[in-house]
Formats: sequence, structure tokens, C-alpha cells
Amino acid sequence: MKILLVGASGAVGRAIAQTLGETHTIVPVGRTSGAYRADLTDDASVTALFREVGTVDAIVSATGHVHFGPLAQMNAAQFDIGLQDKLLGQVRLALIGQHYLSDGGSITLTSGIVAEEPIAQGANATAVNCAIEGFVRAAATELRGNRRINAVSPTVLTESLERFAGFFPGFESVPAQRAALAYQRSVEGVQTGRVYRVW
Amino acid sequence: MKILLVGASGAVGRAIAQTLGETHTIVPVGRTSGAYRADLTDDASVTALFREVGTVDAIVSATGHVHFGPLAQMNAAQFDIGLQDKLLGQVRLALIGQHYLSDGGSITLTSGIVAEEPIAQGANATAVNCAIEGFVRAAATELRGNRRINAVSPTVLTESLERFAGFFPGFESVPAQRAALAYQRSVEGVQTGRVYRVW
Ligand SMILES: NC(=O)c1ccc[n+]([C@@H]2O[C@H](COP(=O)([O-])OP(=O)(O)OC[C@H]3O[C@@H](n4cnc5c(N)ncnc54)[C@H](OP(=O)(O)O)[C@@H]3O)[C@@H](O)[C@H]2O)c1
Ligand SMILES: NC(=O)c1ccc[n+]([C@@H]2O[C@H](COP(=O)([O-])OP(=O)(O)OC[C@H]3O[C@@H](n4cnc5c(N)ncnc54)[C@H](OP(=O)(O)O)[C@@H]3O)[C@@H](O)[C@H]2O)c1
Repeated sequence: MKILLVGASGAVGRAIAQTLGETHTIVPVGRTSGAYRADLTDDASVTALFREVGTVDAIVSATGHVHFGPLAQMNAAQFDIGLQDKLLGQVRLALIGQHYLSDGGSITLTSGIVAEEPIAQGANATAVNCAIEGFVRAAATELRGNRRINAVSPTVLTESLERFAGFFPGFESVPAQRAALAYQRSVEGVQTGRVYRVW
Repeated sequence: MKILLVGASGAVGRAIAQTLGETHTIVPVGRTSGAYRADLTDDASVTALFREVGTVDAIVSATGHVHFGPLAQMNAAQFDIGLQDKLLGQVRLALIGQHYLSDGGSITLTSGIVAEEPIAQGANATAVNCAIEGFVRAAATELRGNRRINAVSPTVLTESLERFAGFFPGFESVPAQRAALAYQRSVEGVQTGRVYRVW
């Protein structure tokens, strides 16, 4: 399969590239790095990417920023960061990408454990991740031609524990390689509208 | 209790006003109608509303638009309509309103059955409603002073069946009055981070 992988240089994306790269052709995309460049927050940029790459058999996204901060100091503009970046960025990739996806192809987005397990300062992250999972469940009912769409919801990666120190007290981490298996299940499997939890 | 009710003139809001108005003082708010006017999509407007009304014992929102349309024709700008209006509008009300909420006070937002039961053309609605429910679960862990936050998720109202004809095939409707009871449970009850389903 020809697999478009957005966020290929990231902690999650590197593991996906390694796992899926063994048997598939990866088209790696990043905002500032990688063979292909695109900004998911920009319609024109995503359209240009697909025009360049053409039809693909799978679209995988492991990207997206959210706002972390105490609720008592949060404002709507900060909350909108996660809506525009992690949520609408990935939704935009799916909405444009559906038109460049081969019959039987799949889209896999990334949410995260905070959808179901709130953490301090994480109200934006929980809302965004829940929205991604809802989008996937609904979009799955409308895709045609045996096209599928799923989400992967990893807990904190062992590789990222230092970066998120303190945000996940007592959470078990998983190696990125284990999270990558869930993306493989989504891409090579048969289900749609699923959220694959990795924790 | 002094209860700020945004969307008081709507199908859901009218029933809430009737039910809660029996024993509480309702401060009715609408965008274009009602004793008080505010636009939830605008920070300055919501702040001005609370400055005028002052501290309240409960904030209830029954408002918000989303985009309905086929996934195959949906673009990111359309998807953003629901994010900015129903989602960020209600989140903005909560983020600003938390600072005008008395000790022990509550915030109640509105999601909808489409969060859990996708319907045709409803990908934006499902994502938005899921995000509201996620926000409420996360925000509940951060509110202090025994302040609470919940969501009510009604199915289609009997009063609105004509307006939404075709969107909810085979769904049982509920009278608005029954939905209003869930808002009463949220306002007068003790729970927080709950989604009260009415179906
Ligand atoms: N790491 C974890 O422990 C963990 C756990 C659960 C869920 N997640 C979720 O997994 C996703 C990826 O996380 P990560 O830790 O792997 O992130 P990361 O290491 O920061 O990598 C982000 C990747 O996304 C790309 N990117 C960022 N913004 C972009 C944009 N606007 N358009 C296109 N590409 C963009 C980056 O490209 P450039 O490098 O070229 O800028 C990079 O390849 C996020 O949604 C995160 O919430 C992560
Ligand atoms: N009706 C149903 O069957 C049903 C079922 C499940 C969930 N819901 C949800 O319940 C909520 C209310 O639905 P509804 O049918 O009652 O709506 P509605 O009849 O259209 O009433 C909307 C109300 O919200 C106010 N409003 C709209 N935009 C606003 C804004 N930007 N700022 C402040 N106020 C605003 C309107 O004020 P003005 O009139 O002054 O403009 C009006 O009072 C929505 O979130 C809807 O998705 C409805």
C-alpha cells in the first residue's frame, strides 16, 4: 500500500513509519520536516499535498497540538488552539483526503487517553480528543466504496514521559512501537468507526 | 436561585424556563430576543453580560448551531461552524461564567443524542456534542468551591420533529418538558461531570 503519514517525524509517527514501512510504501509528511511538507491548519496546503502525491491507499495522521492550562485561567482563544490544530487539522486532512483515497482505503486519526481519563489542565485536550473520536464514528457511516476511518487513542508513550512529566501521575506508559501496532490494525484490518485504545 | 439561562426563547430553553421558573429566578438571555442579549461567539459580549447580571447561582445553556451536510461535500470551514458556535460558544460561557458563579453553583451545557447515535450528514454534530461532553467531564475535575458542571443530551424533541423531519428516522422523540427535568437535576442535584441523557 501507498500510505500518506502526516507527522512522520514525531514520537508516534516515527514508530508508525518503522512498523508500516516494513511492508508498505510510506509517504512521510511534516510541517517543517520530511520529504513532503504540508500544514494541516491550511486548506490550500493540504490540497496541494494531495495534488502532488495523488491517490493513496491509506492516510494516517499522528499530529496535533492542544492547549494545556488551568481551567480557571483558560480563555476561548486558548481553547480554540486545540480546535484549530489537533481537531480541525485532522478533520481537514480527512475531508480533503477522502477524495484522494483509493477504494477500500482507510483514514486513521490520533486522539489520546485524555479523551477518557481527564488530567489536570487538560480540558482542551479531553474535548478535542472526544471530538476526534466522535468524528470518526460519524464519518465512518458516510464513507463509500468500502473506505474506512478509525482513530488510535494511545496513552502516554514511554519515549515521551520526560516531556510530559507530571501530567500523567501513575499512568502506565506504552512503548511507541506498541502504539504503532494499533495503526497497523486500522490500516490493514477491516473495521471502521473504531477507536483503538492503546493502554 | 438566580439562574442565567442562555437560549431562553428556544425550543429547549422555553421548557427549561417554565420548569425552573416555578421555584427560581430566571435571567433569560438570547442573541436577538429576551430581557438580556448576548452572543456566545463573542468574548466581549459574554463578559458584558456577566458584568451586567453579576453573580449567579446557576448558568444554563440551551443554544448552539452546527453544520449539517454530506461528508463527501463537507469542507473545514463548514466544520468550523459547529466548533465556533455550539462548542466554543458554550465553552466560552463556562470559562467566563466560572468567575461569576457563586460557591456551590452549577453550569449546565447542552449536547445531544447525536453524540452517541450518528445520523446522516451529522459528522459535525457528533464531533461537537462529544467535545462538549468531554469538556464537561474534564472541567468538573478543576472547578473549585463545590462548583459543578454537567451536560444534558436530549434526543430530538417532539416539538422539533417537524423542523428536523427526516434526520431522525425511527428515533423516539421526547417532550421538551421531559428534557427540562434533566436540567433541573443538574441545577438542583449534587453530581458533577455528568452527562444526563434524555431518551
Ligand atoms: N507522545 C505521546 O506520548 C502521545 C500520547 C498520546 C497521544 N499523542 C498524540 O499523538 C499525536 C502526535 O504526538 P507526538 O508526541 O508524536 O508529536 P510530536 O513528536 O510533537 O510530532 C508532531 C509531528 O506532527 C507534525 N506536525 C505538527 N503540526 C503540524 C501541522 N500543522 N501540519 C502538518 N504536520 C504537523 C510535525 O512535523 P514537523 O516536525 O515537520 O513540524 C511532527 O512530525 C498528537 O496528537 C498527540 O496528542 C501523543
Ligand atoms: N430541538 C431539539 O430537538 C434538540 C434536541 C437535542 C439537542 N438540541 C440542542 O439544544 C440546543 C438548543 O436547541 P433549540 O432547538 O432549542 O434551538 P432554537 O429553538 O433554535 O433556540 C436557540 C436559542 O439560542 C439562542 N442563541 C442562538 N445563537 C446564540 C448565540 N450565538 N448567543 C446567544 N444565544 C444564542 C437563540 O436566541 P435568539 O432567539 O434570541 O436568537 C434561542 O434562544 C442546541 O444545542 C441543539 O443542538 C435540540
